[in-house]
Amino acid sequence: MRRALLVALVACGGAATQVPAPAWVSDTSTYGPHPHDGATIADRYHDVAARIIAATRGDRAAYDRLAELTDTIGHRLSGSPELDRAILWATRALQDDGLAAHTERVLVPHWVRGNEAAAIVAPTARPLHLIGLGGSISTPKGGITAPVVVVHDWAELDAAGDRVKGAIVVYDVAMPAWTEQNGSGYGEVVPYRFAGASQAAKRGAVAALVRSVTAHSLRTAHTGAMVYDDKLPKIPAAALTVEDTELLARLAARGPVTVHLELESQMLPDAESANVIGELRGRELPDQVVVIGAHLDSWDVGQGAHDDGAGVVTMIEAAHVLERLGLVPRRTIRVVLFTNEENGGRGGKGYATAHQAELAKTVLAVESDSGGFWPRGFSVGHKDADAAIRLRARVADIASLLAGLGVHHVAGGHGGADISPMEPAGVPQIGLEVDNRTYFDIHHTEADTLDKVDPAQLADDVAAVAVLAYIAADLPERLDAP
Amino acid sequence: MRRALLVALVACGGAATQVPAPAWVSDTSTYGPHPHDGATIADRYHDVAARIIAATRGDRAAYDRLAELTDTIGHRLSGSPELDRAILWATRALQDDGLAAHTERVLVPHWVRGNEAAAIVAPTARPLHLIGLGGSISTPKGGITAPVVVVHDWAELDAAGDRVKGAIVVYDVAMPAWTEQNGSGYGEVVPYRFAGASQAAKRGAVAALVRSVTAHSLRTAHTGAMVYDDKLPKIPAAALTVEDTELLARLAARGPVTVHLELESQMLPDAESANVIGELRGRELPDQVVVIGAHLDSWDVGQGAHDDGAGVVTMIEAAHVLERLGLVPRRTIRVVLFTNEENGGRGGKGYATAHQAELAKTVLAVESDSGGFWPRGFSVGHKDADAAIRLRARVADIASLLAGLGVHHVAGGHGGADISPMEPAGVPQIGLEVDNRTYFDIHHTEADTLDKVDPAQLADDVAAVAVLAYIAADLPERLDAP
Repeated sequence: MRRALLVALVACGGAATQVPAPAWVSDTSTYGPHPHDGATIADRYHDVAARIIAATRGDRAAYDRLAELTDTIGHRLSGSPELDRAILWATRALQDDGLAAHTERVLVPHWVRGNEAAAIVAPTARPLHLIGLGGSISTPKGGITAPVVVVHDWAELDAAGDRVKGAIVVYDVAMPAWTEQNGSGYGEVVPYRFAGASQAAKRGAVAALVRSVTAHSLRTAHTGAMVYDDKLPKIPAAALTVEDTELLARLAARGPVTVHLELESQMLPDAESANVIGELRGRELPDQVVVIGAHLDSWDVGQGAHDDGAGVVTMIEAAHVLERLGLVPRRTIRVVLFTNEENGGRGGKGYATAHQAELAKTVLAVESDSGGFWPRGFSVGHKDADAAIRLRARVADIASLLAGLGVHHVAGGHGGADISPMEPAGVPQIGLEVDNRTYFDIHHTEADTLDKVDPAQLADDVAAVAVLAYIAADLPERLDAP
Repeated sequence: MRRALLVALVACGGAATQVPAPAWVSDTSTYGPHPHDGATIADRYHDVAARIIAATRGDRAAYDRLAELTDTIGHRLSGSPELDRAILWATRALQDDGLAAHTERVLVPHWVRGNEAAAIVAPTARPLHLIGLGGSISTPKGGITAPVVVVHDWAELDAAGDRVKGAIVVYDVAMPAWTEQNGSGYGEVVPYRFAGASQAAKRGAVAALVRSVTAHSLRTAHTGAMVYDDKLPKIPAAALTVEDTELLARLAARGPVTVHLELESQMLPDAESANVIGELRGRELPDQVVVIGAHLDSWDVGQGAHDDGAGVVTMIEAAHVLERLGLVPRRTIRVVLFTNEENGGRGGKGYATAHQAELAKTVLAVESDSGGFWPRGFSVGHKDADAAIRLRARVADIASLLAGLGVHHVAGGHGGADISPMEPAGVPQIGLEVDNRTYFDIHHTEADTLDKVDPAQLADDVAAVAVLAYIAADLPERLDAP
């Protein structure tokens, strides 16, 4: 009967938020493990999970916070005043929720975009739509005018031989469309964005233009990180829209094509920045920690709504809902809002370094950085192969409590860029997986804006993270314990 | 057996293109009506339709022509050198196909876009993504800085009262998503783009910003025509992206919002332009004409690939396939490639005026201006209500020959903007309907580019138009005859 009643609460969604738990709930299970031996994790935490889900589903708190972050602050690249404002905003948000919150200093790269323009100048005059890649150098004063060499993979670049010398290499590498089976295909093509400039420079190119990493474009330019190989000359690099890349490829198939390119940027000295930390202190083992994290910085376009404002508010509200329900777990749950994920990863590395001594007691790290869409599962990683198997089985057990949200997929994989620096110390890694079929349409673009986020989907992300984090923090043993 | 054989040819698609018709085909029906009395149109023209479809399906000729138009010429607004080049290109294309082709002079409006920029200046600084509407005046030197008033319909504009005085009116009117039942919803919201400026000016506004007419945006600005009411002050008008409109609406709900707007444009004296005409002369009644038309001009963004390059090459290739197959109908089929549909409709009006004396003998006008997607049906109009019913029934009969292409919908409606000036003279109107579910995502934007066009879909449009035009031109009686 207890379950039936709680299921009814769940069905009511957000309307149940303010309903206090009946006295007999705390009589039997409070917030600890279920008294019956041999019960699964799901058995033991069913009631608590139901309370969390009931308090979260349909709740607009995360969305309202995201609206505040995106509409009043906007995008927030490392080194920008907007990121400073976001750090302050996040610290206050955690404190407003009754959590102990502070910042931890991190120095971050300070790259600033300037004017950017490009055009086909022969055989026809046509403007090109592009965006510089983060970290790219500027073109020389007056820009670069050069013939283009279009390639579709590394092998074609090799085969192009001397034609590359003095040319602008155009990487026309198409990202496959999203499928249920294979997901996004982002990983297959992003190496061209990341390393395309140096690979082209190695062969004598004067600039590199990569096709935007997306399978769906409305003349949409996608920025993102690139790195230079220090042993090679640095050449400017930008991302063309899919449309402009295909136009260049078609024109190049008709005959020689010349492009003029101007990119301006500045790499300033490292800037002051900070990770933001908020804690829901554990009731029994406060020195043991479950980290739930996302990144506060974004690229300098759009609003950084899905990437990763959605993750930020998910983590803040996951802690908030537990606090609101009076659910204090055995261990500490620590919200970590990382700085500088996008163009340096300094926040994640900085956190792991600063908390090195504590990592043995960090029983889990959870990250959300795939957008604020419907939760669909967890991606689980561990440096120890046996522990990875145990971890995955237990996460699947917990995930069964989230089946009503559509969470059905627990796979081995990667937790996330910001928590990965903790992996070598043996910290279990979990990434929140979401229904990201449209994520790469807007990823790193002007179109990553609040209107793309659905409050109900975001609320379910909060539920998924809160349930996972609470149980991981409350279980008698670590989730990866033998 | 004859049918079985021809169906087999159809099934082979383009591969059958070069197969001459067996001798017994011309023995019995050649290209005229079927000898059996009482047969339906579909019965009488089944074999010819099958030949046309077999020669067209999978043929890349239309696509290759569209690539040439869009990639080597590009967009082509009235008065631009690109439109002049397109007129020359189209004339030559028709002549290359063996058609008699010429141009007919039309004077067109010559509006030229200049620099355009806008930004929120309070309560936060944020660039706005927009595009001026065609025909808009410029802002005064230095631009306009004014508070915004966001409205969601005409009633809210009325209700805003004095707040509109001195303000920038933002029309946040959302276009409904495409549905099978209702189609695009374009017609419901386009009046705000068309008349929003004058309606705002009437109430004292200093500028009007309309939400782009689309249901799906990646920060995509959609231009389009607007007109001023001559009795009211003229104020500048532009289309914001969906994202920026919603941002303004959200910010305005939080408190006062101020925007700075700069739009530059010039309205120059009317420019020389021309309709392009190509004829497949009829074998018996050459003075009677079936017009098949589309418009050569486009907005000054993207490539005008779907709008209406696709229509242009559909009409050229529809005539071409008939010529190629030696299918000379009883009446003349006239390809008319109209100038200046987008911002003036002068091509359509000019044609109707110049050919006034001939309109009584113009037995049908067919237009394609909804994109080059899969053909789905025909929209049929006639100034005479009884004739409209007859016309619709006969078009449905013809359409049954195209069922294999997915043509299944014949409805009463509108033929198209360019052929509509012939309607008062009693010229039957038919618009090609296509599967336009994604059309308004790219309509009048930088994203209307060749990559959005599928060669197979375009080839089927050619088949649909060629079959319809051939039969209408070949039947003993007019398609709307009592």
